Amino acid sequence: MEQPDPTIHQPVRLKIMAALKALPQGEQLEFVRLKGIVGATEGNLGAHITTLEEAGYVGVEKDFVGKRPRTRVAMTPHGRRAFEDYVSYLQEIIGVAGSS
Amino acid sequence: MEQPDPTIHQPVRLKIMAALKALPQGEQLEFVRLKGIVGATEGNLGAHITTLEEAGYVGVEKDFVGKRPRTRVAMTPHGRRAFEDYVSYLQEIIGVAGSS
Repeated sequence: MEQPDPTIHQPVRLKIMAALKALPQGEQLEFVRLKGIVGATEGNLGAHITTLEEAGYVGVEKDFVGKRPRTRVAMTPHGRRAFEDYVSYLQEIIGVAGSS
Repeated sequence: MEQPDPTIHQPVRLKIMAALKALPQGEQLEFVRLKGIVGATEGNLGAHITTLEEAGYVGVEKDFVGKRPRTRVAMTPHGRRAFEDYVSYLQEIIGVAGSS
């Protein structure tokens, strides 16, 4: 990879992906919790989740708990591989930086 | 740091900074060599070096070798600290991603 994956490299999306990657595979995180972790506004977070969803990196599930709407987000296997590739790219760059 | 330093996070500038960080402190790299390492066009590389210079992260020295103009770039101590902070930020994000 000559450049870091721009879908992941964007700072807010990087935080979203890192938070989801920390979960056991396939586990979902509630939108409201993700909002707290990432520290973004609701609109901003929603837009970045849509970008990640369009890339196939996350899946979004909307349902209701009683009358309260709930949105949950999980990393897809494709997203997990993309994130691992991204981290490898960075480690290579940083590794080069630290090794000589 | 809540967000990665945008001056360094940009992909071309990240490569420039990583290449310079790999050198012994204060050592200069010729523009033409940096161009080969980064894989950017001359104009693009020049613009990003200017951005880094304006942030005080690199110093640029222009002289002549015979009649041939030569441009050399080195990381400043300020740039070195900024890069170290940037790497720490990423490691924290990636560390969080890998630890649970």
